[in-house]
Amino acid sequence: MSLSSKDLLGIKNMSADEIRLILDTATTFRDVGERDIKKVPTLRGKTVINLFYEASTRTRTSFELAGKRLSADVINISTSTSSVVKGETLLDTARNIEAMKCNIIIVRHSCSGAPEFLSTRLKSSVINAGDGFHEHPTQALLDMFTIREKLGKLEGLTVAIVGDIAHSRVARSNIYGLTAMGAKVRVCGPPTMVPPGLERMGAEVFYDMDKAVEGADVVMMLRLQLERQSAGLFPCVREYAKLYGLSKARVERAAKHALVMHPGPMNRGVEISSEVADGTPVILDQVTNGVAVRMAVMFLLSGGTKAEN
Amino acid sequence: MSLSSKDLLGIKNMSADEIRLILDTATTFRDVGERDIKKVPTLRGKTVINLFYEASTRTRTSFELAGKRLSADVINISTSTSSVVKGETLLDTARNIEAMKCNIIIVRHSCSGAPEFLSTRLKSSVINAGDGFHEHPTQALLDMFTIREKLGKLEGLTVAIVGDIAHSRVARSNIYGLTAMGAKVRVCGPPTMVPPGLERMGAEVFYDMDKAVEGADVVMMLRLQLERQSAGLFPCVREYAKLYGLSKARVERAAKHALVMHPGPMNRGVEISSEVADGTPVILDQVTNGVAVRMAVMFLLSGGTKAEN
Amino acid sequence: MSLSSKDLLGIKNMSADEIRLILDTATTFRDVGERDIKKVPTLRGKTVINLFYEASTRTRTSFELAGKRLSADVINISTSTSSVVKGETLLDTARNIEAMKCNIIIVRHSCSGAPEFLSTRLKSSVINAGDGFHEHPTQALLDMFTIREKLGKLEGLTVAIVGDIAHSRVARSNIYGLTAMGAKVRVCGPPTMVPPGLERMGAEVFYDMDKAVEGADVVMMLRLQLERQSAGLFPCVREYAKLYGLSKARVERAAKHALVMHPGPMNRGVEISSEVADGTPVILDQVTNGVAVRMAVMFLLSGGTKAEN
Repeated sequence: MSLSSKDLLGIKNMSADEIRLILDTATTFRDVGERDIKKVPTLRGKTVINLFYEASTRTRTSFELAGKRLSADVINISTSTSSVVKGETLLDTARNIEAMKCNIIIVRHSCSGAPEFLSTRLKSSVINAGDGFHEHPTQALLDMFTIREKLGKLEGLTVAIVGDIAHSRVARSNIYGLTAMGAKVRVCGPPTMVPPGLERMGAEVFYDMDKAVEGADVVMMLRLQLERQSAGLFPCVREYAKLYGLSKARVERAAKHALVMHPGPMNRGVEISSEVADGTPVILDQVTNGVAVRMAVMFLLSGGTKAEN
Repeated sequence: MSLSSKDLLGIKNMSADEIRLILDTATTFRDVGERDIKKVPTLRGKTVINLFYEASTRTRTSFELAGKRLSADVINISTSTSSVVKGETLLDTARNIEAMKCNIIIVRHSCSGAPEFLSTRLKSSVINAGDGFHEHPTQALLDMFTIREKLGKLEGLTVAIVGDIAHSRVARSNIYGLTAMGAKVRVCGPPTMVPPGLERMGAEVFYDMDKAVEGADVVMMLRLQLERQSAGLFPCVREYAKLYGLSKARVERAAKHALVMHPGPMNRGVEISSEVADGTPVILDQVTNGVAVRMAVMFLLSGGTKAEN
Repeated sequence: MSLSSKDLLGIKNMSADEIRLILDTATTFRDVGERDIKKVPTLRGKTVINLFYEASTRTRTSFELAGKRLSADVINISTSTSSVVKGETLLDTARNIEAMKCNIIIVRHSCSGAPEFLSTRLKSSVINAGDGFHEHPTQALLDMFTIREKLGKLEGLTVAIVGDIAHSRVARSNIYGLTAMGAKVRVCGPPTMVPPGLERMGAEVFYDMDKAVEGADVVMMLRLQLERQSAGLFPCVREYAKLYGLSKARVERAAKHALVMHPGPMNRGVEISSEVADGTPVILDQVTNGVAVRMAVMFLLSGGTKAEN
């Protein structure tokens, strides 16, 4: 089995089988990271470009490592040093990169839809590394991988996603993925941060966090972007922490085996208490699994099939 | 045959035979970019330093890819992160880099002559990646490679170069190279942007673009640096676009088989209309060929000869 | 023999045997830089992270090259592009990097103790690439390597270190190392730049440079950080240069065979005259040896032993 698209733009249009294919493939690559020699020759002689229009050490590093461990040549291009400053269009920049015969372009962009726009115009595989408030598919894949690894399955689980749902591409990608895999998704945040229409996406909406985490198998916290305060979306950090921060007491409302997750970077004392953050090993497992999932995605988009690697 | 110098500083002092050697060698490396495994072991264990004192994603990426596809270790050093801010002299910085036993230093600098200054003081090979208003030799080489590839030869062709000739290192390198290879060069721009003395370089000067492109085999547009407007070199962008922009009507004045070229990044609607930009595949071929030409230059400067690779 | 710690945090707690082990191992790697193919497979498949919270091209490049010549995958992370700007703690950033299964984290930080703080919390090897006013151990190791290479030994030599001792991690690391190896260390600077307690570290304090360099086997100049002037630590650059700059006349007061050293980048005409700077080849040997010493440290921290490489 292989992926139906040359690109990974979002989870929305992926089938459960495709998601499963990526997660299964990632299991193999998960092992590579544990080996003494963390390197396979899979993408030797291929070119991978990290095209980041928004700064993100974490995601860029994860993709860079994934590419290098697959033996690809990886080139980083970030906004501040890029021709963008000279007024070149996104499409011209990407066409130029493609003309250098690259195989995979990883794009992070503040505009929703930028990766899709490129994907329809380029022959290279495009991987969405986060676009505006739209999707961040590899984050959702690594989250699903982590949940499946820890709890053995996704189907039938209850996952509570808490925070600024409206501005979170992580939340959107997870809602699509988790519901496709048969999990129940609860979303929770202050009314100013919960957009309309989530029910149609298959999620149940809560404004009271205590109720949202009640009996949940997974509590997935979102990073609060502190700059939203000036936009009036929440009154003050202390108030937000009290109402929507994950304290130990709230963790205890969830199922006994519940996983606490966070895509990072964490605001300790805001959306998650330090006690809770340090008490869960899962958040770092997410990071570890991120490299494996990204290796799997690059492998599959390069024409790899499950049996091959 | 091999190159006579350890460095590539400019086209001015190169013989037609040397230019031909680089273009012929680049043909071999052009194929590497089309392969499934875009990598040859030619420079394995060699160190290539990209020392960029001016930002340029396009050129830096092209050199970085060229080095990596030759299996060299490539290190990027850019101004903002460099010791330059600590007041170290250019020569001390370069001597330090050389002391780390690098083989090739690629230099971009806003001062004309900076690469030559270094080349006489260092044992490493120095490649000029653009210096002030002086030369940008690999750009001219990739332009000549592209013309020769498309039109089968350089000798006897008429090439019109249009734009800010005075401030263009791309124009200077191309004038030297094209005339050495037996092409006729016309240059055209507003009088404020055409320096005296071009006739002595072998170029014919035009101020009327319609006449300059008349029957030309190649129309090579230069990027308008918009910051020149404040220097009073042109009255306004619209006026410039009307007088010196490449419209479809002007393309039709050139020969039927004429190539439209641009070193990028393009100002669409200024020096080139979007219609013309999207109608020519040659501009992206230039980018593709840039990697091949730079691989050829690094190969030859490292002691490679034509038959060897 | 192997190193007793998984980390290289400072010279203070190293034994003479450990220092000797690193210097001896570096001798082997010194040769790699002279070869045509400057690459060994020692760290193939290992991941090395350059985590720089202070800009430093020189040190970053040296570590990057050392890692690449050992065939490791090297990833650069610098402050400006890092999650630090998003308010993540140092420990969370480092834990995340470690979760990506890196083997060695090289840390430069403006806070004294930052590398040690990380080392006790991470399984990866931590190498201190300079922390605050504390230590810069690889610099001292490359200095000792260079002295031993040139003068055949360290024991019994007299080394004069001149400049802003108080703010120099280079000076501190060298005092620890040189005294451990049996050399006599003199330190010299204006009274505002010489901290109390140096005698307890085994150094002899001078305020008169002529006396400090008298008969010395090595004169090691420190970079004057010009921003210290506004703090009132010295009256003006000219005065400083006159009292504590290394002129030819002062070199002649030292032993005939005396080495002139500088960790770079140099302020020519301030702490060292151009005549002296250009007259000594040792300063560039320090740079060359820096790569070898860093290769040796990474090799040994990865479990290599002397005989093995």
